[in-house]
Amino acid sequence: MTQHGTLGVAVIGTGKMGADHVRRITDVISGARVAAVVDIDAERVKAIADGIKGCAAYTDPAEALADPGVDAVLIASPGPAHEAALLEAFRHDLPVLCEKPLTPDAVSALRVLEAEQKLGHRRVQVGFMRRFDAEYIELKRVLSSGELGRTLMLHNRHRNAYCPPGFTDAMLINDSVVHEMDVTRWLLEQEITAVTVHHPNPSSNAPEGLHDPQFVVFETDGGSLVDVEIFVSCGYGYQVQAEAVCEKGTARIGDQHGLLVNTAGRWGGGIAPDFVARFEEAYDREVQQWVDATRRGEISGPSAWDGYAAAAVCEAGVRAQAEGGRVEVEMIERPAFYR
Amino acid sequence: MTQHGTLGVAVIGTGKMGADHVRRITDVISGARVAAVVDIDAERVKAIADGIKGCAAYTDPAEALADPGVDAVLIASPGPAHEAALLEAFRHDLPVLCEKPLTPDAVSALRVLEAEQKLGHRRVQVGFMRRFDAEYIELKRVLSSGELGRTLMLHNRHRNAYCPPGFTDAMLINDSVVHEMDVTRWLLEQEITAVTVHHPNPSSNAPEGLHDPQFVVFETDGGSLVDVEIFVSCGYGYQVQAEAVCEKGTARIGDQHGLLVNTAGRWGGGIAPDFVARFEEAYDREVQQWVDATRRGEISGPSAWDGYAAAAVCEAGVRAQAEGGRVEVEMIERPAFYR
Amino acid sequence: MTQHGTLGVAVIGTGKMGADHVRRITDVISGARVAAVVDIDAERVKAIADGIKGCAAYTDPAEALADPGVDAVLIASPGPAHEAALLEAFRHDLPVLCEKPLTPDAVSALRVLEAEQKLGHRRVQVGFMRRFDAEYIELKRVLSSGELGRTLMLHNRHRNAYCPPGFTDAMLINDSVVHEMDVTRWLLEQEITAVTVHHPNPSSNAPEGLHDPQFVVFETDGGSLVDVEIFVSCGYGYQVQAEAVCEKGTARIGDQHGLLVNTAGRWGGGIAPDFVARFEEAYDREVQQWVDATRRGEISGPSAWDGYAAAAVCEAGVRAQAEGGRVEVEMIERPAFYR
Amino acid sequence: MTQHGTLGVAVIGTGKMGADHVRRITDVISGARVAAVVDIDAERVKAIADGIKGCAAYTDPAEALADPGVDAVLIASPGPAHEAALLEAFRHDLPVLCEKPLTPDAVSALRVLEAEQKLGHRRVQVGFMRRFDAEYIELKRVLSSGELGRTLMLHNRHRNAYCPPGFTDAMLINDSVVHEMDVTRWLLEQEITAVTVHHPNPSSNAPEGLHDPQFVVFETDGGSLVDVEIFVSCGYGYQVQAEAVCEKGTARIGDQHGLLVNTAGRWGGGIAPDFVARFEEAYDREVQQWVDATRRGEISGPSAWDGYAAAAVCEAGVRAQAEGGRVEVEMIERPAFYR
Repeated sequence: MTQHGTLGVAVIGTGKMGADHVRRITDVISGARVAAVVDIDAERVKAIADGIKGCAAYTDPAEALADPGVDAVLIASPGPAHEAALLEAFRHDLPVLCEKPLTPDAVSALRVLEAEQKLGHRRVQVGFMRRFDAEYIELKRVLSSGELGRTLMLHNRHRNAYCPPGFTDAMLINDSVVHEMDVTRWLLEQEITAVTVHHPNPSSNAPEGLHDPQFVVFETDGGSLVDVEIFVSCGYGYQVQAEAVCEKGTARIGDQHGLLVNTAGRWGGGIAPDFVARFEEAYDREVQQWVDATRRGEISGPSAWDGYAAAAVCEAGVRAQAEGGRVEVEMIERPAFYR
Repeated sequence: MTQHGTLGVAVIGTGKMGADHVRRITDVISGARVAAVVDIDAERVKAIADGIKGCAAYTDPAEALADPGVDAVLIASPGPAHEAALLEAFRHDLPVLCEKPLTPDAVSALRVLEAEQKLGHRRVQVGFMRRFDAEYIELKRVLSSGELGRTLMLHNRHRNAYCPPGFTDAMLINDSVVHEMDVTRWLLEQEITAVTVHHPNPSSNAPEGLHDPQFVVFETDGGSLVDVEIFVSCGYGYQVQAEAVCEKGTARIGDQHGLLVNTAGRWGGGIAPDFVARFEEAYDREVQQWVDATRRGEISGPSAWDGYAAAAVCEAGVRAQAEGGRVEVEMIERPAFYR
Repeated sequence: MTQHGTLGVAVIGTGKMGADHVRRITDVISGARVAAVVDIDAERVKAIADGIKGCAAYTDPAEALADPGVDAVLIASPGPAHEAALLEAFRHDLPVLCEKPLTPDAVSALRVLEAEQKLGHRRVQVGFMRRFDAEYIELKRVLSSGELGRTLMLHNRHRNAYCPPGFTDAMLINDSVVHEMDVTRWLLEQEITAVTVHHPNPSSNAPEGLHDPQFVVFETDGGSLVDVEIFVSCGYGYQVQAEAVCEKGTARIGDQHGLLVNTAGRWGGGIAPDFVARFEEAYDREVQQWVDATRRGEISGPSAWDGYAAAAVCEAGVRAQAEGGRVEVEMIERPAFYR
Repeated sequence: MTQHGTLGVAVIGTGKMGADHVRRITDVISGARVAAVVDIDAERVKAIADGIKGCAAYTDPAEALADPGVDAVLIASPGPAHEAALLEAFRHDLPVLCEKPLTPDAVSALRVLEAEQKLGHRRVQVGFMRRFDAEYIELKRVLSSGELGRTLMLHNRHRNAYCPPGFTDAMLINDSVVHEMDVTRWLLEQEITAVTVHHPNPSSNAPEGLHDPQFVVFETDGGSLVDVEIFVSCGYGYQVQAEAVCEKGTARIGDQHGLLVNTAGRWGGGIAPDFVARFEEAYDREVQQWVDATRRGEISGPSAWDGYAAAAVCEAGVRAQAEGGRVEVEMIERPAFYR
């Protein structure tokens, strides 16, 4: 630990998410500071480091993680670079907050699991930030309390106003529905066993080559049924909703009614433009809790196992999407290490 | 009673409200038919009568009420004509549904009360249709059940998109706030004892010569406090809301959420354009229940006493509005006849 | 037509629905009266007829329909009796309001279609009352206006607090989901082409032998995707919700917020106990509009074709439920007569 | 400034609010640390200081403010101690975040204004945390944008489940309604010129000696009318609502719909138990923005003038409450220094 007990964090990757995490750790998070930034773009990384007191710039993750001021690592580089960065962090036995995905596929995720188990203690938290959202936390509290009985179904809506250019059908699963995969596993405490993908008419606003919206059905090993509407070019705003249907009632989140305006024959309010506006506080809470746990020498939050499970379910989802019909999920048994 | 037990109704006045009641009795209400229509405009009344099987046209209310096919009277003429029509109906001992106001002032209303008492039985129902609105009925049910304890305050909003030309400050009280006066008396089962009228800045959309909006405070003999925002040129729609503040909770009506639309960065729904759209079913229910009670030889709904009380409170309201400060309501003691 | 132009209706079947329609026509509906009631239970039908002026009692539908006071027929007998009653009504060329189902299966429904076509004009309206519900009408208005673009998906929730004893898996489709089948066809103006039924864990409150809830997916010939949660022992109330997902926005009904109460740490309102409370006004409107159209010599509302289509989709639904997987709907081509 | 640019804050007063601010600065706020804590209870203050690295304990504010590690002051002692602490902070030219009230009355508040003006630059931010609440900020944004036209009225509800023992009628104004006084001035950018207090029936749950609820009306120099329901023993939860009535529409906050649960015949959600739960993030944002501004050498947020104005309006409110009728507010003209 550095003086004053402040956690020195190396941020790997300074694209949109990485730059935002640098700002977050510097301006919002208590108890942490950015000790190092890493990017293959040397000029960019130097410019960022120059603006932060006591922050060093690197182009090689391995060098950054060897910096004695670095106590912990936040990986925000592109998915294919995650495995190498994770293994390097393990070499230095550093705690890691790794943006989703853990790695781009189940096989590589499995190698990370094995490496972490060899360390003998858990070091990885995966960036599934919905687990830190106040509404999802409240939903989990209600479901876990048992007051509504067992959860039988979970209906999800996941809508983006627009999607970035180059978005593909597979990214719809791997980048978007992956959140509902994690939320399903976390809320229900069940594993997903099969995936079916339905293709309604595409919207005429969907980008060329993208089949949008899609409707995805999960089955779980606990017998629950989960459906997800994914619609990344809905045009009107960003909206995430979930309704759990339980034996004694239902519980729904995502209909926030903050400011209500009556005007011109209409009542209502605004819809968040994107996930940053909707989940900003969840991101803050995620990083804050990771910092706090790390300073106490603990690990909490979504584990490497959760990252692997998401990768395995994504693989089934992408196959179901491409081939039609129902595809079973293939996963190894959960190691005792991750229970 | 006519053959088949259908109630033959004479409708006096065929302006906007009267014509709507003719349509309602003919097309919507079961068990009644329009037996006579009365209007000083001979041509107009003939045209209406010609369109309804077995309906006679009159220009003189007295002649109409002497028609043997007339079993009951619905008075929808202008307020100043009500007293004469009511007294004529009493002469024939006919049940009356009298549109509000009972009469335009407390003194004339008192004369009606006395005449009805001389008949020896109640014959008048006043047209306070909010008592027949499903939401108000539900609110009264909750307040009367005692589950929320005593009612301490009642907050009311009464907003019209636009008001007809020639609308005056006094009409704001006599035609609009009169509904909240009746609702207060009916929901709380208390009489109003004093009125204060506040004048915020007028809206720049208010018609020339009208001070709009106004904010009215009632005190009751049961110690409750009632406030009413009246805003007849709010521009955006018709909205009536009421929130009762009780010892153990509050209960609010008027936030109907029928159809909810998400579009263009906004969630919400439509607001009724006017009171016809908002209270159409209340009008239907009001007339239907009056017909049903009349056919059974009974009287129910708001009585002549309620009409008198509204007139007395309106008089205090108009004085408070004109003179400023708090004006006490002057009313006779409630006769046993109306208890 | 009888004197005064009042429509004389024969009501066939005086069980729960039939008795309610007798009450409705007598007390609520303008322009109609019950001229005859028919039931195999002679005592029961006599008791009902005795309470209504000018109403005759019959045990044989054929005799009732030959009664010269009968202008129109409302069929509320059990489904297997519908075909005979419909054919008898055709023999007398009487307009019919037939409670759903038109007949219990697609083959018999087809025979009704053929018989009606032989008459040369349409005579049958089927009792899909949701088409007369104010919220569904508003939803259809928004979808038809085109302001939200094409409809891509329709999410439905259909929840009953409890179901009657003896309710079976097939009844879940034939009696409950059949409403969403009709709503889908009516809102989207598309035919349903395939059905899949998913079985999540049954609720421990589900009656012995019933798999409840179920999750049903429809595909349509217009490429829309429709999902239905059917849960007939949800315990907490009756709830029907629908959300249309369109190219430029979504529109949702079924979240009525009439009375809102704050108490004991909780805000919220009541949920209707059953479909009678929720759809009472839809039933009134349905029968009223049928009476009005019939008096004008017209036919409107859901046709025999809609009844046949529902039967055909139900057959696919019951097979999908029993056999698993996706089942294609088999339907004849729509005759020009029903376009 | 201390090393790393972290702001060293002296917290004066370690009661409920003070202790919470110590926790906040230590665990939540980025860029600040608690350098000194002050309380007349020597043991208590020592225990707190011992738990924080580099934090000194004092019983005398003057000594604490002379500590070279102190860069700024947060005053959370009882109101009567504020003036002395503020003047001491001015002596050291330290930026201050002073919990409301600035001082307990208008005369002493005026002395603070004068002392601050003598400094030649503004140093005081008053702890009106609602200005930092996301919903109020959104409401102000809408009102300031002009899209709804001018604001004519502001309706406020302020409800506490329970109030602490010993709460008096004057505290109802000075501790509770003072928030709506500040919100009114901030949202409308107008000064309050007169106050009227109405007394409906007290709730039977109100503590002995307290008249609760009360209904307070403000008039402003811009001609707006503001009403406040204050109800500190409403029993069911903590609720703060505000509706601005504007020329072209209304805007309402305080009906948050986070988690919606359907169960046992009722839909709805939870109500916050107290102001800490409701406004926790506003407190965090308030202190964070004060720290950020202070580190930049700037001052923002509610000024000493806002504290003085609140004191002057409170004095009018307490007199209106005690004497009945309308009481005009007496205030000096706003010095150029505070424009």
